[in-house]
Amino acid sequence: MSDAPSITFRPIGVLRSPYRERIDAPHQGTVVEGTESGEPAEATLELAPWVDERALLDLDGFDRVWLIYVFHLSDGWKPTVKPPRGGPRRGVLSTRAPHRPNPIGLTAVELVAVEGRTLRLRAVDLLDGTPVLDVKPYVPWADAFPGARAGWVDALDEKTGRLYAPGPRKPRKKPPPFPAM
Amino acid sequence: MSDAPSITFRPIGVLRSPYRERIDAPHQGTVVEGTESGEPAEATLELAPWVDERALLDLDGFDRVWLIYVFHLSDGWKPTVKPPRGGPRRGVLSTRAPHRPNPIGLTAVELVAVEGRTLRLRAVDLLDGTPVLDVKPYVPWADAFPGARAGWVDALDEKTGRLYAPGPRKPRKKPPPFPAM
Repeated sequence: MSDAPSITFRPIGVLRSPYRERIDAPHQGTVVEGTESGEPAEATLELAPWVDERALLDLDGFDRVWLIYVFHLSDGWKPTVKPPRGGPRRGVLSTRAPHRPNPIGLTAVELVAVEGRTLRLRAVDLLDGTPVLDVKPYVPWADAFPGARAGWVDALDEKTGRLYAPGPRKPRKKPPPFPAM
Repeated sequence: MSDAPSITFRPIGVLRSPYRERIDAPHQGTVVEGTESGEPAEATLELAPWVDERALLDLDGFDRVWLIYVFHLSDGWKPTVKPPRGGPRRGVLSTRAPHRPNPIGLTAVELVAVEGRTLRLRAVDLLDGTPVLDVKPYVPWADAFPGARAGWVDALDEKTGRLYAPGPRKPRKKPPPFPAM
């Protein structure tokens, strides 16, 4: 088969979150044990100027929204990756790793409020500065399949516990505001 | 805020499906009443030559995968859209309409089999020729929130029945193979 043409997207906004560095962020927004606060993080997404605010109408009735975004710190990919929770290398498309053929991320976050051009969000595993390409409403009858088998992830969950926290084992220390003497 | 830079993606493959035209496809893959066959459609996704086949390793243990794809027939967007199931215009980002700021689609499809470089899929609401940007494993503890409120969609479901089928009301007739006399 031949390649399909490339396509260019313009971010609809940039996420503001408390996670400044990769090591600080949980690997999924629902897994926060081991992060600095131990609480689901709040974040905001303000629409870029080119997106009409009316695009957000009716969104406030949804508990969750999908964010489709760019893993903007990803710089290349390999066909297999070593998941942070352990085990052998896996095919990258059977993982949620950021280093993928197209560095696109997907997370269902809690929608706290819609305030004008800004979404207030919770349980976000995204880094500050993440470019967001799309927001979609979470619709359980299209999106929720709680009984779906999840291959190697299920196997690892059985072994280590479902919400074994990836990410840093100890709270990260902030650097001192001025050089230490 | 200032705009974030645009980003270009290269499709990892092109979907082959029985749905040739927009009017033929269900609006979600799980809703097939009113389509020509009344059965969930099968489709295939073959990896483009630039993607190493090992990227698919370990995927076969998953019941479902996310497809992130391009609504390639979309040609522009408006801040509000009229959903096909009825009711007033809604903010486009509170719908799953194809005509969005970035024409990106998201569907959780059944994974039937992985055969070399090809995924066999079921319950696909995508048109033949759809460029696919990413495949991700469906992981219930990250993706399944069966109790999430779904705003105007819930309200419409209560009114018309949850699986009221959008799409054509009557089976589509195939054109005759040769011009009728």
